[in-house]
Amino acid sequence: MNSSQFFTWELKLMKTITCFDISEPVLHISSGKFTAGKHWQHKHMYHNGNFEIIIMIKGTIYLQVDETHYTVHEGEIFALPPYHHLHGYKESPEGTQYFWFHFFSKPNGLKTIELKSPDDRQIESLFRKDQAVLPLQYKLPTLDKVFIVANQILDVAKTHYFTSMAVDYLLTTLLIELSQEYFESISNIPISAEEARIDEIKEWIRANLSEKLKVSEVADAFTLNPHYLVRKFSSRKPAKRLSSTSTN
Amino acid sequence: MNSSQFFTWELKLMKTITCFDISEPVLHISSGKFTAGKHWQHKHMYHNGNFEIIIMIKGTIYLQVDETHYTVHEGEIFALPPYHHLHGYKESPEGTQYFWFHFFSKPNGLKTIELKSPDDRQIESLFRKDQAVLPLQYKLPTLDKVFIVANQILDVAKTHYFTSMAVDYLLTTLLIELSQEYFESISNIPISAEEARIDEIKEWIRANLSEKLKVSEVADAFTLNPHYLVRKFSSRKPAKRLSSTSTN
Repeated sequence: MNSSQFFTWELKLMKTITCFDISEPVLHISSGKFTAGKHWQHKHMYHNGNFEIIIMIKGTIYLQVDETHYTVHEGEIFALPPYHHLHGYKESPEGTQYFWFHFFSKPNGLKTIELKSPDDRQIESLFRKDQAVLPLQYKLPTLDKVFIVANQILDVAKTHYFTSMAVDYLLTTLLIELSQEYFESISNIPISAEEARIDEIKEWIRANLSEKLKVSEVADAFTLNPHYLVRKFSSRKPAKRLSSTSTN
Repeated sequence: MNSSQFFTWELKLMKTITCFDISEPVLHISSGKFTAGKHWQHKHMYHNGNFEIIIMIKGTIYLQVDETHYTVHEGEIFALPPYHHLHGYKESPEGTQYFWFHFFSKPNGLKTIELKSPDDRQIESLFRKDQAVLPLQYKLPTLDKVFIVANQILDVAKTHYFTSMAVDYLLTTLLIELSQEYFESISNIPISAEEARIDEIKEWIRANLSEKLKVSEVADAFTLNPHYLVRKFSSRKPAKRLSSTSTN
């Protein structure tokens, strides 16, 4: 194996992952739905500071990013960080169709990392409340929700809203949805019946936030032993509200 | 006219308007779709710091807020600021149905104002890029988009996402959509053909941001006289990018 082969071999094991700060909306630049005619291949582009997401509806595109070739099929997404050269290295079948989205994130809102042969747990740990995560390329398990949001973005982007943030909120929703689909595909931690139960209780507490809650009332509503509930929530660091009224 | 009558008469001319800071997403507390059975009327609630939006799907609800009665019909929204007492003062028809959403905004993110016999221009001036605007009650001109987003919120709220912000982004999208519908209903400034044209050009420039643009190229793309374009954009304070390359 020569050094160039070794380099390629090492690249195959690398995984490019981008983390997006979602504490504020991203900034939509442009978006569209493209359908390829005969003999079409992607023109050369250099993404100067903006991120591109491609969502394949049908067909195949052949993308060269810097020196590497990628084949992107129906139902796949391709999430390309800024500052790369992109072009099609081969013609796509006629009728190839995809959504595309260009956007900026807030300053320092993007972090692209290269992981060497990562395992799913390592990637899973990158997901946070204020951080969405997308790999360079992956296949979406389901398409319906993503297509609905993509169409909403295109619809809102072409309409005159009183605020340009209308499309920014929807585009951030799309990022979260894509990220969630990825999360589900790598996450195999089953949500236990008990966890689901506790989530249900948390939801109920949120819904009744305006009332002064006592643990006994929550326990009643779920036909639980109040001591069980206090123990469960104490070990889980719940919202302060419940614990502060828990022993009345 | 006694003082109490005068007070009521004055109230009728008042318009309660809430301005929402949308520079960051609002915080979803709870939401749902409610269908009334027989002899139902809204239970008493006190909104302790959280905002409620009701979107009527069908039927009628009779709401008393503090001392005032409101009748809310099919296709209307009711946007109730925090710190008010709410209850139904009369039974709703069986099958009355509505979406409801409770949320917090960021600290100081809400501003509710009482306008005395306002005109539409006064209200229009409240709409800003980072500020959505809703009156206490109004009839939505169209329902389709709003219902889609409402259903997305309910769907996402009941699913375990890696981030609770998934639903916050959609709820802020709903606020913007409701606000936009209101904006369209009061705004009668027609967008002139020229304004539409300039918006089209701005859109094109955004889409081509990664290239170094010259005015001559933009003018070519739109078959315009470059001098016209420079004049138009100079008088409109456009993005710096175009003006800095405008005379090359």
